[in-house]
Parts: sequence; structure tokens; C-alpha cells
Amino acid sequence: MVIVMAPTCTAADIDTIADAAIEAGCEVSVSRGESRTIIGLTGDVAQFTTLDLRGMPGVADVVRVTAPYRLVSRDHHLRRSTVSVAGVPIGPGTVTLIAGPCAVETPDQTLQAARMAAAAGATLLRGGAYKPRTSPYAFQGLGEAGLRILADVREQTGLPVVTEVVDASDVALVASYADMLQVGTRNAQNFALLQAVGAAGKPVMLKRGMNATIEEWLMAAEYIAQRGNLDVVLCERGIRTFETATRNTLDVSAVPLAQRLSHLPVIVDPSHSGGHRDLVLPLTRAAIAAGADGVIIDVHPRPDQALCDGPQALVDGDLDELARVMRVFPPLVGRSRARGPIAFGELVTLEDGRVGSGIR
Amino acid sequence: MVIVMAPTCTAADIDTIADAAIEAGCEVSVSRGESRTIIGLTGDVAQFTTLDLRGMPGVADVVRVTAPYRLVSRDHHLRRSTVSVAGVPIGPGTVTLIAGPCAVETPDQTLQAARMAAAAGATLLRGGAYKPRTSPYAFQGLGEAGLRILADVREQTGLPVVTEVVDASDVALVASYADMLQVGTRNAQNFALLQAVGAAGKPVMLKRGMNATIEEWLMAAEYIAQRGNLDVVLCERGIRTFETATRNTLDVSAVPLAQRLSHLPVIVDPSHSGGHRDLVLPLTRAAIAAGADGVIIDVHPRPDQALCDGPQALVDGDLDELARVMRVFPPLVGRSRARGPIAFGELVTLEDGRVGSGIR
Amino acid sequence: MVIVMAPTCTAADIDTIADAAIEAGCEVSVSRGESRTIIGLTGDVAQFTTLDLRGMPGVADVVRVTAPYRLVSRDHHLRRSTVSVAGVPIGPGTVTLIAGPCAVETPDQTLQAARMAAAAGATLLRGGAYKPRTSPYAFQGLGEAGLRILADVREQTGLPVVTEVVDASDVALVASYADMLQVGTRNAQNFALLQAVGAAGKPVMLKRGMNATIEEWLMAAEYIAQRGNLDVVLCERGIRTFETATRNTLDVSAVPLAQRLSHLPVIVDPSHSGGHRDLVLPLTRAAIAAGADGVIIDVHPRPDQALCDGPQALVDGDLDELARVMRVFPPLVGRSRARGPIAFGELVTLEDGRVGSGIR
Amino acid sequence: MVIVMAPTCTAADIDTIADAAIEAGCEVSVSRGESRTIIGLTGDVAQFTTLDLRGMPGVADVVRVTAPYRLVSRDHHLRRSTVSVAGVPIGPGTVTLIAGPCAVETPDQTLQAARMAAAAGATLLRGGAYKPRTSPYAFQGLGEAGLRILADVREQTGLPVVTEVVDASDVALVASYADMLQVGTRNAQNFALLQAVGAAGKPVMLKRGMNATIEEWLMAAEYIAQRGNLDVVLCERGIRTFETATRNTLDVSAVPLAQRLSHLPVIVDPSHSGGHRDLVLPLTRAAIAAGADGVIIDVHPRPDQALCDGPQALVDGDLDELARVMRVFPPLVGRSRARGPIAFGELVTLEDGRVGSGIR
Repeated sequence: MVIVMAPTCTAADIDTIADAAIEAGCEVSVSRGESRTIIGLTGDVAQFTTLDLRGMPGVADVVRVTAPYRLVSRDHHLRRSTVSVAGVPIGPGTVTLIAGPCAVETPDQTLQAARMAAAAGATLLRGGAYKPRTSPYAFQGLGEAGLRILADVREQTGLPVVTEVVDASDVALVASYADMLQVGTRNAQNFALLQAVGAAGKPVMLKRGMNATIEEWLMAAEYIAQRGNLDVVLCERGIRTFETATRNTLDVSAVPLAQRLSHLPVIVDPSHSGGHRDLVLPLTRAAIAAGADGVIIDVHPRPDQALCDGPQALVDGDLDELARVMRVFPPLVGRSRARGPIAFGELVTLEDGRVGSGIR
Repeated sequence: MVIVMAPTCTAADIDTIADAAIEAGCEVSVSRGESRTIIGLTGDVAQFTTLDLRGMPGVADVVRVTAPYRLVSRDHHLRRSTVSVAGVPIGPGTVTLIAGPCAVETPDQTLQAARMAAAAGATLLRGGAYKPRTSPYAFQGLGEAGLRILADVREQTGLPVVTEVVDASDVALVASYADMLQVGTRNAQNFALLQAVGAAGKPVMLKRGMNATIEEWLMAAEYIAQRGNLDVVLCERGIRTFETATRNTLDVSAVPLAQRLSHLPVIVDPSHSGGHRDLVLPLTRAAIAAGADGVIIDVHPRPDQALCDGPQALVDGDLDELARVMRVFPPLVGRSRARGPIAFGELVTLEDGRVGSGIR
Repeated sequence: MVIVMAPTCTAADIDTIADAAIEAGCEVSVSRGESRTIIGLTGDVAQFTTLDLRGMPGVADVVRVTAPYRLVSRDHHLRRSTVSVAGVPIGPGTVTLIAGPCAVETPDQTLQAARMAAAAGATLLRGGAYKPRTSPYAFQGLGEAGLRILADVREQTGLPVVTEVVDASDVALVASYADMLQVGTRNAQNFALLQAVGAAGKPVMLKRGMNATIEEWLMAAEYIAQRGNLDVVLCERGIRTFETATRNTLDVSAVPLAQRLSHLPVIVDPSHSGGHRDLVLPLTRAAIAAGADGVIIDVHPRPDQALCDGPQALVDGDLDELARVMRVFPPLVGRSRARGPIAFGELVTLEDGRVGSGIR
Repeated sequence: MVIVMAPTCTAADIDTIADAAIEAGCEVSVSRGESRTIIGLTGDVAQFTTLDLRGMPGVADVVRVTAPYRLVSRDHHLRRSTVSVAGVPIGPGTVTLIAGPCAVETPDQTLQAARMAAAAGATLLRGGAYKPRTSPYAFQGLGEAGLRILADVREQTGLPVVTEVVDASDVALVASYADMLQVGTRNAQNFALLQAVGAAGKPVMLKRGMNATIEEWLMAAEYIAQRGNLDVVLCERGIRTFETATRNTLDVSAVPLAQRLSHLPVIVDPSHSGGHRDLVLPLTRAAIAAGADGVIIDVHPRPDQALCDGPQALVDGDLDELARVMRVFPPLVGRSRARGPIAFGELVTLEDGRVGSGIR
């Protein structure tokens, strides 16, 4: 940490700060220039947080030069991590496809979507039973009934389940059904929820807040890690910008950046960032090409009847291309497509037999 | 709602949409132009939300032309509302000052800050017992012990208490101590929390999400209102932009805009938006001049020792000017300063006698 | 300037940097911590710009701790400046009202708008002869014919003229008619234009780029100042954010901030930031209350027939309130309203006699 | 265009609007609902721009439903265009690599950079002789001397030259040396410059303004097209957002979106968006995977001595991977790498023989 003193600061101001820092356990070095004095502090994150230096007399600016996170930092864990979700790896050697319906609506819709997902190469099933919606008048999800549907479909397809939890008090219930807990963009700084999923004993997919800097996103992950859970997968899903042609702006640069700053796997949600079906495949290709450890994609058997986010769900006709992308792009970036923990060859035939050949 | 059809749409596409809209209870009118067909729907918010028109064949764009909220809309409640917090009004006739420490740290610090607040003209006390912090290593608040301190200080000063709740499961506890519940910017789309405060039977101050449009902010208020609680005060506290010279960018235009769209009172937090002590008074003046129904301000007896947001807290030396602003600006915009529910004349003398004369 | 070295840097890396900095004339001090080495440089702006330290081996980050501008900096000129526009002051003692039509359309419209402006207390006339428009199909201004109209109206009303120049090759022509040259938001980083107005010998009003940080805005002013022209007035006019309810988001905090960083006067354009007539008066009040040295406002005798930005122009019915604001707010912030260089008492009676009493 | 009337509008208000629209040549259809009346207008862009409907009585909102551009729109030109730069194609069948130094510094540096570029597969040479810099104290480019160096290097390498022009008065000069004129992000709404390059008879690369919506970017292209020049290549180079970990946020979604809205080719600048060398290759892969028609990349033989943007320039060690990317990614998206107009086999051997094999 670097403290830049105001031109008007006194020698006593400098001493006060140096003393406080030394007392907190930091090493201190003072650079007196003609116009500016700069105080350098080195030491540990936890020491700095006890110091509120900005409020002290004579301080012009405080510049943090080390990351404010520790457990999720790559400085502390040089090799990139692989998170295992019921045996399915998400990490640097593979590209994992997670797919399924945005919202669980009926057993049939969910099963059909799961089969579409598997046909395209998915090894994990996504599906929401609790839906955070901007409007209180919109469909809010089936709740526990939705979780039961997901569990049934898992049994039928062998696909482990990733599902969102929106309130700390629901974590135990959702964790009893899910293989991986998802924290959504609107809860990315719901610290009570982050701590609860940190204690739930299940892998967590943490979406980036749509207004979160990469650093804040990693701080949110640190909240989960601090409760003893390092099985966290970061998910870039677009940030809010002035551009309104897309629902959010996919920050594809965040993939290599977050991977350099943190050892955690980083995946991409091309469905929610763009908000248009036409963008999903180009953004999927871009995500894998940029080095993403996986992608999470909405698929729906009848998007025009979807209760949530129909316009962005892939349909049958898109699945061949998705399967091709999952087959040809990972090798170009030195990876294999993630295989599921079980053989699911028999799943890939849809009822109408049209898709499914892609992944052989 | 207006549906813009693609140039390539068919007559059947148009019919399908018109039929669906009529079935949902909307009035439909179709404008066929040479290049474009436009379908106008009129009817109620709730009807539209059951239609997912964007996913239907032939649709190029869907443009909403009525507000997606109802209970908080000024269309449905032409006169602007006044919310009463333990007898203190927040509304169009007054400018209410809410002040106090960012975080409750000790009984003494809280009492001193409350006295500073009262001296400057505050009629409500703010103070955080639960603090949502970006870093898990930062001070997270005293919890229920902090609530007890606030209740004690209320007894000593007569100032009703505004305090934040961060998790739905804490709402009953916090409501048992507080006169007004605050929902913070990071929880502005924590829908479980919004619904819980909606059912708690206490007035709510809803901070704008730092990435929320004005419409999304009003939708969050609608979540609270929908549970039967219309005692909601909106609080503009800055939005996230590319500018880094301030912590957030105070969107002062949001004050008149939100007041035109909603009947709810709108106040401003000049402390958290700017993040610098020097900005608090200019932004306070700007907020009142723009028509805010109140302001909420951090004060601290010893900001250099504050455990949270010290750099933005006003100190003793600022209070005379704050008191002057509260006295001279409200009449210029046709308002009086909000008076507390009780006489608090004896509170305004600080121990050192320096401030307090301002509000006579 | 502070250079943060990577944990993996070598002693040779540190020496290389120190040597380069010393050679450039900087003072260097090295703080070696256990985990991080920090190199502090002190010296002059011009020295730093010759060093491209970020690209050097072993460097993790470079943090600038002094402002990159000099001539416009308040560090180099402690007292805030007053700029005189044909005798009308813009600066810390006054609040100057600049008003007029967005675009010059006809002699009559311009004269009527100028009379409205004067009636509300304006001492400078704005009006565009060259209009930068997003669409090539929109009205682009009258060019030199518009400048002649402005000169005629100046003669009839005594109001000095502020008008925009959009291309470096037009500067001499526009300067031959105008009393103050305006550089618009879209040209805020058109460096050829900035240099040309810097050499034109007339005061300049520099609008903030809608995507410019405060620092970049001051750097643009530095371009003008570097050509020998320190008569620059900064104009905050809203920045681009995710919020679409307003045309741009007025960054009212930029007023006190820019005044702290620079000695130049800072005014506000409440018309173009909000984009709605209803917002102009609240934002004008907010600007003056926040400490602006002036405001620039669109007025139009017939906004429904305006060729440019009609929806935001004030009309006759708003002028009484504008005049009242100009009369009662400046004294509250320790200022007087700027008086024009001439008596213009006879101008304040509009044809219908309704307004004009306000400014006596 | 759709006009949404306020609930309080009168029948006369509706008639006034309908009459004005009919007079302007639009077709009009009025949908009277119980709560809202909606007026649909169909017709041509040029007709709408003469109407300033927002300012008319009774109007609540005006919603444009057709694009405000015409010549660059894909509606008017269904097949995507290929732009030829001295025989090198940029368009839907190829992926064109444009590379070279950010700024031309010396003949030697430029030639070396050009050879690096060619070795990696570039068929066009970039290099700046006029540099728009935020600071007036930074290197501003060599001007015409730089153009001469570029022309010499073109002669030695056969690579056509792409170079920036920053002022309308320089267009003729720059066009006399360049094969393609570049308009930079800071000049993306410098309409005088856009019109000048539109008349210069050379292909133009138009960078997206860092604060420009996709629509505004296309409107800027329309300015060029309107002067008779349809040889415009759009270049996405990152937008300004709240994220500061990257210089700008590459909006990779803009590639497929702009290609859907416009027939013009769309390329990506991965160097300036990210601002870090480490991001250039991942973003290059992402751009090609998303469907970009080309990429423009900074290379420099000695980035630590570069006078401009050294930290983002690729160095020798990166070129093998760039060459590999240019070889293996285009076929995956159904394209070939653009070949230059001449054989340049002998160029690919750098002096030290390390790179160059990649592109065979």
C-alpha cells in the first residue's frame, strides 16, 4: 500500500501514519521528494484493513498495490484449480458445457431441455427453481417443486444439477437437491448469501455482478472461500454499460484477466449477456477462444412458450452447431471437452432423432 | 406496448400475436405500413407480463410504453405521498435530515454522533449495526448489540432510528428495534429481502442499486409495495459510471425524475455517493435545490478512528454550515425543514458548546 | 509516480528503472518490502511523460500520484480564476447566466430568444451556427449566415456572443464574430481543434466530453492553455452512463471537484444533460447550489418548431422562475449574479410584457 | 416511428401530430386504447428527421422503430460487403490481419515492425504518423515525415498502408500517402473529419467511439457514406465502462450485431481495447471466433522503448502464436486468411530467423 501525502502535510502527520502502520505489523518506508512524500507499506491484507488511512491528517491519496483478496488469489496458489461437480471437472484442461432451461417449468420441458443439452455435449444440467425477477408480477420459479423435477431429470439423464439459490435461508434446502449452487448476478454482493453457500459443502458457481469490477467479483469469491469452500467457479455474464443493443456487455477480457488474478476456474454465460439467440453461438465461440473453462447456455424445447428469457434460449436447430463448436474449438486452445462422470451415449437421441449425432 | 414486426413477417404471425394479446385481455390495434407493421397493445401491466412476445415468430422488437410498476406509480396516485417515521414526516412539504454514524461502534460514539446530528437539525438518526462490506476482512457491524445501542441512544435523544437490514432472516429482529428499515444499494435486487421488509410493518428506505436504472429502482419498490407496504422512501445514492474521481456518481436528475414517475418521497445520500467529506455539503445543497424530500448524512465524532467510511463523515466543524443549509435552502424550494416528533432543544448543545446554535 | 514491482522482479530490473528515472531528472526512492518492492519517483510532469515505465521488465503496475496537467492545475495557481468575456465575468464571485437558442434559425427567432434570455438575467447569449449532429440528415446549422445573425442580435441587445466551432479550419472565421468560442462534447478530444482555439485569442468554453473523466477534461483544457490561452471556462454537461431516462447523467459532483483540481471557472449546462424541459430548472438550482460559476441554458420562443433540441428549451412560462432562481440562489452560496458589461434595462420587457420584472 | 401520447392528451393534439406527419410524407395510423393512444408512423428516415415530435403538445414518448441510417444499413444492401484496400480484401470470406507499430518512430523501427507483421500473416501495415494523445506533453507523431517512412516501408515490403488522420485539413495530404485512412475513437463524432474522409476517394477504417452506441457508430459511417464513399470498415476497439482492469472493455458482441445491422465489414482492435500485451492473443482469438472480418494489432520490435502504447505491443516471441491463430481459426468460422495482393514469401524471415515459419 502506498500513501501519498498532501504537499501541505507536516512531519508529525508522517510520523503518525508510520507509527500506526508499524503497530499494525506493516513494514514502512518513507520517500521524501521535493514536492511530495510517499509512504510505502508492505505486509498482509488483514493488517491493512484495520487501518483507515484515508481519514488521517495530511493524506492526499491511498493507493493499494496488492490485491485485497488472498484465498482466491493466484499469488497464493500458482496453479489454476479444477473444481469437480459430482465428478465433472471444470478447470484448465477442459471446456465444460453446462446447459438447460433458464427456468424449470414442467417435468417434460425440463427433461426435453436436458436431452437437448446432452445432445450438444453438456455434462452438467442448469435449471432455475428460484428465479430472481425484476418484476414482482413475473414468474418467480416453482421453488422446491422445481428442485424435485431437477432431481428426477438428473436420475433420468445422469446429468448433475446446477441451480440458483437466492436467499440464505434456502441454502440448506437447495443444497440437498443440487450438485452445484449458483449465486446470481443480482446477489453478487449479498454477503449473507455468499457466507451461507460458503458453508454449504457444495461447489458454487458465482456469477459476476453486472456492476462488479473484476476485483469486487474476486472479493465476493473470497467471502465464500473464507467459510472454507474453495470449490468456486467464476462466471462472467456481462456487465452493465451504456450500450443498449445487448442486454449486457459480455466482458470477454475478464476471462484471461480473472484467470491471471485468481486460481479459480472461469466460465462464461453467453445467453444472459447478449439476450438474443443470434448472439449465443458467436459469443460461445469467443468465450472458448479466449480461454474460458466452460460455458453455461440456455436451451428450451419451445422458447416461444418459455416463462422466462425465451428469446435467448437455443432451440433444436442450433444444437448441431453448438455440438460442433464444443468439438472443434477446445483442441485449438489446448483443451478437451469435459466428459461427464458417466456414459450418456444413449441420451443423445432426441425423440425426433434430428440432433445428437454431433457429439460422437 | 408496441410490437414492431420484422419486414419479413407473415400475416399469420400478426394474427398469432393479436390472438394471444386478446386472450390475455389486451386491446389490440394493428398499423400496417408499407415497410413495417406495428401492433399496439393497451391494457394492464399484469396482462403484459404473461406474454413473452419477443420470442414469437415475426417479431423484430417489443417496446414498452407504459411503466411496468403500478402501486408506486404516480399515474395511480397523483398526489405525492408523505411517509411518517415514528411521527417524523418525509414528503413534499418538508426537507428531512437523517444523520448519524455510518456504523455503530460504541455507545459513546453513537450518542455523540446523534448529538452532532441533532445539532445540525436532524430529526432521524441513522446508524448501521449490520454492514455489508466488500471485503470479508473488514468490520461487519456489531449486529444485535449495535441495535441495542441505537435503541438506547433513541431513548436519550428522542431521535427515531433508521438502520439497515441485510438478510431476510434478520428482518423481524431489526424491525423490533428500528423505526425505519434501510435496504442498501447492494441488496437493491435482493428480492427475498425486499419481500421480507414489505411484510415487516415498518417504513422502508430503499437505496437505489448502484447499477439500477430509475425504472428498476421503482420495480424494487413495487416488490415492497406488493406485500402491502407503501411506506417506502426512495434514496438516490449515486450510480456506478466510468468516473473514478468520486466513489459513485450522484445522479441528481433522478430526484425530479423519480418524483414525477412515483408518488413516493425521494431523498439523497450525499455521503456515500461522493465518498469525500469535501463533497458532502455541496451535494447536500444540490440535492435540496433539486427538490429532494430529505438527505441522509454520515457524521462521526472522530472520523480518523471510524471503522467504516471515515473519510466521508462530517465532523464538528462542518455542522454549522449543515445547519445553515437546512435552515435557508428549504424555504427557497417551498418547504420547511422537518421537525421531529418531540422537542429536542436541550440536545443541541454539544459537550464543548461549539455547535448547536445553527438551528435556532 | 509510484512503480510497483512484480514479486518476481530482479535487482537488475529495479536498477534499470532507477537509472532511467534518474536520467530523466526524477528523484528516486526504493522501498524494498518482503513481498513487494515499490519505487517512488518525484519530479515534474514533463519528465514522467518521457518514461514509458509500464513496458519495462519486472514492472507490475505504475501509479501516477500527481496530476498530469500543470497550467490549469490549482496546485500551480492557488486562487480560482475569473474569465472575462467582453467584460462579463465568469468566476468565483458571481453566477453567470448564458442563455439563448440551441441553434440559430432566423434573425427573429434569435432576437426573441435573446430577449427571453436577457429577461431571465442572462448576460451572455448562446446560439449555434455550426451544429454537430449525430445524423447527417439533421439540420447542421446556418454556418456563417448564423454568425452574422448572432452579431446583429448582439448589436441589438448588447449581449456578447458564445458560439460553437466544430472544425479547426473554421476557428478564425468564428472567432471574428464570437466573443467566446465553444468546444462541444463530441470534440472534447479533437486535439487539432483544441490547439486552434488555444491560438485564437478569444475565451473558450470547453464542454466535458460525455465519456471524459474529470482528469481527461482538464487535460483537454491543458491543450488549450499550452497554446497560451488560459481564458478557459469548463462546462459540465452530463456524462454517458447506463441510465437512459435522461439524455446524459449530470455529474454535479464534478463542479466542486474540478474547482478543487483546477483554478478555471466551472459552469453547468442543465439543458443538454437532462434533455427534458422539466429537468432544466431543478438542475439549474442544483448546479448553483453545488457552487457552479454559471449556467448555460437553451431558450426558444417556439420550441415545438425548433430545428434542434426543442424538447429541452425553456419557454416564456419558465422564465419567471429562472429569473427568481438567478436572484435568490447566488447570495446563498456567497455570490452575486453576474451583471453584464452594459445596462440592458430596456431589454427585459418582452413584447407581451409578461416576464422581465424578475431581474430588477 | 411510434408516438406514445400522454394520458392527458386531447383529440386536437392527436390531429396536429397526424397532420404534421402526413404533410411530411409519412403514413399514419392511430391506435386509441382506453388508457393510451399510440400513433404509428411509417415512411422514410429523411421524413422523420424533419419532424421534432418530442416537443409537441400531448406527446409522452417517441419511439423510433427503424434504423436512422440508410446507406450503411443491411436492410438496403442485404449481402455483406467486401472492401478492397489496394487489392487486399476485408470482408465476409476472409480474416485480414493488419499489423504494425502504434506510432511511426524511425525508418528502422517501422521496417522491422512491418517485417514482424508480415511474418505473422499481416497483409496490411498499420502505423501512426499523427497521434491523438490525451496529454499535450506526450509524443504527437512525426507528421508528414512519418507518412514518408510508411510509404518507403510499403515499397520495401509490399504491404499497403493504413494510417490515421486527425484533422479535416490534413485529409488530402494523408490520402496522398495512405492506402486506407483511419478515423480514431476520439474523432468518431468529429463530423467535419468524417465528411472530409468521405470525399477523399480512399477506403476508411472507422473506429468505434469509446462512448458510442452501435447505432451512433453506424451513424458516423453514414456521414462518410453520404459523401459517396461506401468503402468503410468498422473497427470495434473497446468501450468505456466502469471496469478499470482493462483500458477499455472490448465489446465482442458488437461484431455479430454490427454485421447484422450493416453490410460493412467489421474488424477488431484487440491491442487498444485491452491495453495489456497478455490480453492481445486471447482477444484476437475471441474476435475471429465471434466472426470478425479482420484484426488490427500493434507490434513493435522494442516495446520498452516505444514512444506510444508500448505495453500493448506484441513482441517477437508472440508472433508464432499469432501466426498459428491466423492459420487455424479462420477455417473454423468458414473463412480463409486474407492474402496480400503480392507474394511476400521473402518477407517472412526476420533477421534472427526465429519467426516466420508460422504462416507457410
